[in-house]
Amino acid sequence: MAAQIPQEQWAQVLEQRGGNVVYKKIPVAKPGPDEVLVNVKYSGVCHTDLHAVKGDWPLATKIPLVGGHEGAGVVVALGDLVKDVKIGDHVGIKWLGGSCLSCSFCRTANEPLCPTPDLSGYTVDGSFQQYAIGKAAHVARIPKECNLEAIAPVLCAGLTVYKGLKESGAKPGEFVAIVGAGGGLGSMAIQYARAMGLHPIAIDGGAEKEKMCKELGANTYVDFLSSKNIVEDVKAATPEGYGPHAVLLLAVTEKPFQQASEYVRPHGTIVCVGLPANAYLKAPVFDTVTRMINIKGSYVGNRQDTAEAIDFFARGLIKAPYKVVGLSQLQEVFDLMSANKIAGRYVVDTSK
Amino acid sequence: MAAQIPQEQWAQVLEQRGGNVVYKKIPVAKPGPDEVLVNVKYSGVCHTDLHAVKGDWPLATKIPLVGGHEGAGVVVALGDLVKDVKIGDHVGIKWLGGSCLSCSFCRTANEPLCPTPDLSGYTVDGSFQQYAIGKAAHVARIPKECNLEAIAPVLCAGLTVYKGLKESGAKPGEFVAIVGAGGGLGSMAIQYARAMGLHPIAIDGGAEKEKMCKELGANTYVDFLSSKNIVEDVKAATPEGYGPHAVLLLAVTEKPFQQASEYVRPHGTIVCVGLPANAYLKAPVFDTVTRMINIKGSYVGNRQDTAEAIDFFARGLIKAPYKVVGLSQLQEVFDLMSANKIAGRYVVDTSK
Amino acid sequence: MAAQIPQEQWAQVLEQRGGNVVYKKIPVAKPGPDEVLVNVKYSGVCHTDLHAVKGDWPLATKIPLVGGHEGAGVVVALGDLVKDVKIGDHVGIKWLGGSCLSCSFCRTANEPLCPTPDLSGYTVDGSFQQYAIGKAAHVARIPKECNLEAIAPVLCAGLTVYKGLKESGAKPGEFVAIVGAGGGLGSMAIQYARAMGLHPIAIDGGAEKEKMCKELGANTYVDFLSSKNIVEDVKAATPEGYGPHAVLLLAVTEKPFQQASEYVRPHGTIVCVGLPANAYLKAPVFDTVTRMINIKGSYVGNRQDTAEAIDFFARGLIKAPYKVVGLSQLQEVFDLMSANKIAGRYVVDTSK
Amino acid sequence: MAAQIPQEQWAQVLEQRGGNVVYKKIPVAKPGPDEVLVNVKYSGVCHTDLHAVKGDWPLATKIPLVGGHEGAGVVVALGDLVKDVKIGDHVGIKWLGGSCLSCSFCRTANEPLCPTPDLSGYTVDGSFQQYAIGKAAHVARIPKECNLEAIAPVLCAGLTVYKGLKESGAKPGEFVAIVGAGGGLGSMAIQYARAMGLHPIAIDGGAEKEKMCKELGANTYVDFLSSKNIVEDVKAATPEGYGPHAVLLLAVTEKPFQQASEYVRPHGTIVCVGLPANAYLKAPVFDTVTRMINIKGSYVGNRQDTAEAIDFFARGLIKAPYKVVGLSQLQEVFDLMSANKIAGRYVVDTSK
Repeated sequence: MAAQIPQEQWAQVLEQRGGNVVYKKIPVAKPGPDEVLVNVKYSGVCHTDLHAVKGDWPLATKIPLVGGHEGAGVVVALGDLVKDVKIGDHVGIKWLGGSCLSCSFCRTANEPLCPTPDLSGYTVDGSFQQYAIGKAAHVARIPKECNLEAIAPVLCAGLTVYKGLKESGAKPGEFVAIVGAGGGLGSMAIQYARAMGLHPIAIDGGAEKEKMCKELGANTYVDFLSSKNIVEDVKAATPEGYGPHAVLLLAVTEKPFQQASEYVRPHGTIVCVGLPANAYLKAPVFDTVTRMINIKGSYVGNRQDTAEAIDFFARGLIKAPYKVVGLSQLQEVFDLMSANKIAGRYVVDTSK
Repeated sequence: MAAQIPQEQWAQVLEQRGGNVVYKKIPVAKPGPDEVLVNVKYSGVCHTDLHAVKGDWPLATKIPLVGGHEGAGVVVALGDLVKDVKIGDHVGIKWLGGSCLSCSFCRTANEPLCPTPDLSGYTVDGSFQQYAIGKAAHVARIPKECNLEAIAPVLCAGLTVYKGLKESGAKPGEFVAIVGAGGGLGSMAIQYARAMGLHPIAIDGGAEKEKMCKELGANTYVDFLSSKNIVEDVKAATPEGYGPHAVLLLAVTEKPFQQASEYVRPHGTIVCVGLPANAYLKAPVFDTVTRMINIKGSYVGNRQDTAEAIDFFARGLIKAPYKVVGLSQLQEVFDLMSANKIAGRYVVDTSK
Repeated sequence: MAAQIPQEQWAQVLEQRGGNVVYKKIPVAKPGPDEVLVNVKYSGVCHTDLHAVKGDWPLATKIPLVGGHEGAGVVVALGDLVKDVKIGDHVGIKWLGGSCLSCSFCRTANEPLCPTPDLSGYTVDGSFQQYAIGKAAHVARIPKECNLEAIAPVLCAGLTVYKGLKESGAKPGEFVAIVGAGGGLGSMAIQYARAMGLHPIAIDGGAEKEKMCKELGANTYVDFLSSKNIVEDVKAATPEGYGPHAVLLLAVTEKPFQQASEYVRPHGTIVCVGLPANAYLKAPVFDTVTRMINIKGSYVGNRQDTAEAIDFFARGLIKAPYKVVGLSQLQEVFDLMSANKIAGRYVVDTSK
Repeated sequence: MAAQIPQEQWAQVLEQRGGNVVYKKIPVAKPGPDEVLVNVKYSGVCHTDLHAVKGDWPLATKIPLVGGHEGAGVVVALGDLVKDVKIGDHVGIKWLGGSCLSCSFCRTANEPLCPTPDLSGYTVDGSFQQYAIGKAAHVARIPKECNLEAIAPVLCAGLTVYKGLKESGAKPGEFVAIVGAGGGLGSMAIQYARAMGLHPIAIDGGAEKEKMCKELGANTYVDFLSSKNIVEDVKAATPEGYGPHAVLLLAVTEKPFQQASEYVRPHGTIVCVGLPANAYLKAPVFDTVTRMINIKGSYVGNRQDTAEAIDFFARGLIKAPYKVVGLSQLQEVFDLMSANKIAGRYVVDTSK
């Protein structure tokens, strides 16, 4: 085995906060007793990676940092305690790289809330390198029939929207409004919602997005650019006009949130996903109380959610558009992202 | 039977919005096929009654109006369809006087969200009279061993806090912070929380309230008048310092809400009860999402919640301080309430 | 209105227990204040109707009896209290024709467990007549776009399997084994399971049923006629071989039940539907406890389940084979049913 | 540290299946990277230990075996990966000594169903020795204020009944019948039920047990020795005579199970705990289905349940009678247990 693993590898390294990433050779790490070494083949690029580079979130990264948390690859080495992952297995490096597995959050399957997490590509090195370390208990199990390129974005974007839909409590046959349905997260959310037996109402702007949302399975499309009354239009798309049982807010800004609190069905749930800097939720007390509205924050999924999100993908129910470039081009991707010039997901190929 | 029911009765009538109530004789109504006539013995006086008089909520009352929605009395006449209530039964007139029993809210036991409700003492006449009409399916069933004076405030105040605790999702052995624990709602909330196996953390101001809260069963008291850091003090009162699993906000104003969103445990729930005019909830997105906080409005309980809240009372687990005056003195009670000079609940005796 | 409603109508009447039904003219009833009169157009014929005729269940029917509880028709008259149903609305007469709406079961949306139910075609007259009485709060609301012939069997068979799937607790993406998948109930169960995002494993006998089950959406078919080891075959059809999360037993007989308790996933649920005379469930304690298996009886759905089951049908997701004959031919249908010569559902047309 | 840990220790060793345990000196083991070494102070003796000795369960033990799975002691050494347990912490060795922490059961907090468990005192050595190895993620955390003698039986008996009560789904204010309430498990079950806000109905035989059950907090006692109709007596003890919402069957034998299925409330839950050899559950289909009864097996609690069960004990809400003898006397305890001469729990002191 050892012969296959090189001493050095290519990686993208952030050497100082706010700087550019540097494509360079660094040593390959060795897994601890409860860890695996993963030969990362592909890694998705997420907005969170840009936040890590910019350092604009209220949580510090390690420095120097190898970012990335949507890595899909192959296990090439194992620690002594690892029993349920084997050399050659396909696995994913995801945002939650490790957790204590013992605290009151971990032991209730809420490990994303563990107070001592390893955050891949943030507090520990991530998937923007050819060989990454992962905790065996946390790496995502990927069935061998899955395309490693295509699954990379499922490991964070897919998981996040799937978790948001689960947290909404919406049941098969119920309606869920998806705000930002035409974006990268949104297009996956529509597909997950359909696969879960939900009726998605897509909310976004423009005819092109309408076409895509409907093709992906949205029951209705409400165009915020042309709608004269979004609240009424969303309610009109639901049985008896009571509004959707749940709302998935994929970019939580103030106006869409306020609207959601008006059109959501009484006793319905608004799930907030996405982390714009310095944003606030604001809702009128009278309406929230008398309509018994539920407002929830949803972060990332746990390991079981990950397995489920991957299972839906493996059954061919989830397809997300993505574009592959070499790992060496990562800074260019960040530049496009900073300039808001990205539609869909970029995936980097670590061999280039 | 008929001989026992007079043609006329004493009532307190609001003849114009914003005016005083008028103590006068009015006719006794006759129950429809699905209704009962209740000889109201006692009625609690709630802040909502004052809102009805002032007309300062975004929902109009009928005029002229007989207010009151915490009425406890005896059934004296029945409509033809009524089978499960008998003459002589003790029942309560509560806020939700009637609902359609058929809509998607009613048929899922969410009748407080019925779009066509009868609101006692608000959209239909209530319990500030000697003989009130109630829908048979909605009057609260009161066991005969219960004191009708003492139970009156349970029909709204008790029910509301009990429902809030249920909506919080807190399970036996978990911690719940009660903001405004020393008030009328709060003192009942402490007792319900204890009876449900929860550990209440009382938050209020002053040593007198501390004494009362601890006697009622609070684990800890956090005094907002003297605490140097409420957030830290509340967290310190919980296992491992993670904060309470739930928060019951009995008067939703901005500062306590913000604090609650800081000290509530990750994945915990803040339940908003109480309806100050024009108030807003405001929470930072980053924290709400990454800590997966749940913010819920809770209105009043349904019929099953009512039965349960009464059952806890009937077992002697809930005692609320109250003061009895004659129905004829209702305006004086409203005057005290307007001047914020009331501690505990006033109950009016309809015979005086 | 009155002009349209005749004084007399055709009906099938059971005049003595165990006898044949008699096709004759009987008076049309008048609705009480909380009732509607329904001009039944079509009515499905269910095995329960045969039990009513034979009188072989531990629950007596009224005599004389007009049977039938899958009636679909049009409202032609209303009682004075009825507000949410209008003349001309399409509605269904279902097994649970009425309930008290006040007991602790009714007020928690468990009205099928009400101790004083009206059972259509059993304790009150049902849908084997041209004009049937229904409680307004209980008649099923049928959207006008639905074919009244085709929806009739949904009102009992569809509802029953949908409720069973809900009671199973299986969530989108999970596996459910359907025992008796090739029969009338089973074919609907496969379709409901798919619409709810579940993966159905069909269990039945023979190649013809295999073809049908797979066309309807079954992931896998296990043939009990040819399988060498049903338990192993069912488990092999699930991820990691742990067995399905739920089992829907559509005819509860001893052997299939025992097998289900062996192949169901640990912490999984076996839902028993269907009522063979004098049958027993039997399970080994050691296995039930250490594998934490859950065994549940599921009866009929409540009003909300009915609305949901109809909604799935209205969206075109549920298609059940049926054959229409005249109401006058009902005894012939019973004769075929007694002789076990029926595949799919018979529906009677009350105009013939 | 090393100086404190001896090379050898006293233990009770089962050298051949069905034989007697042998009190002898054996080496002290060294913890692996994810393990801790616990200086066991006290260990409860459970019926399962007797099954291990006799080898009469359908699951083989290791041989030679050090039994015991209710061990309370002090951590004296740690593996390299252990971060959240410290030298000097008080911890418990419980039945589930370890699990993979990665399978679909472990990652959903159902680790007792892990297909590759370490069962203390059964498939790995347990607490009938002075120094036992435990997986750091699994040893129970015991607050230092807890008496180590008294808490030992909570680690299995307490946990098991607490889990059973949780699995029953009964909510504060509801009724739970406890069958075998006067025994060791039962007396703890009554106390846990009370602490959880439930109303326990104790079922057992004789006046002495009645006295104890009522002192521990049972609402009602039904004596199966003197009752003329257990089913009616249990139902009469509940509101409206509908029967208890849940039944906890602490020794699952056929007659009590049949009775439970008759008196449990419609939609209620029967939880089976306890593992008599070769026993079967048997229930009539008609009644199970039309009353929508739920029958569940409950095994042991997970790590979170353990923490909760200990927390109730630490608050002084649970007191179980026990008798302390030396570890050297273990065979005598087994002999008494075999002869059915034990009331309450025996605890062995490893220093004697």
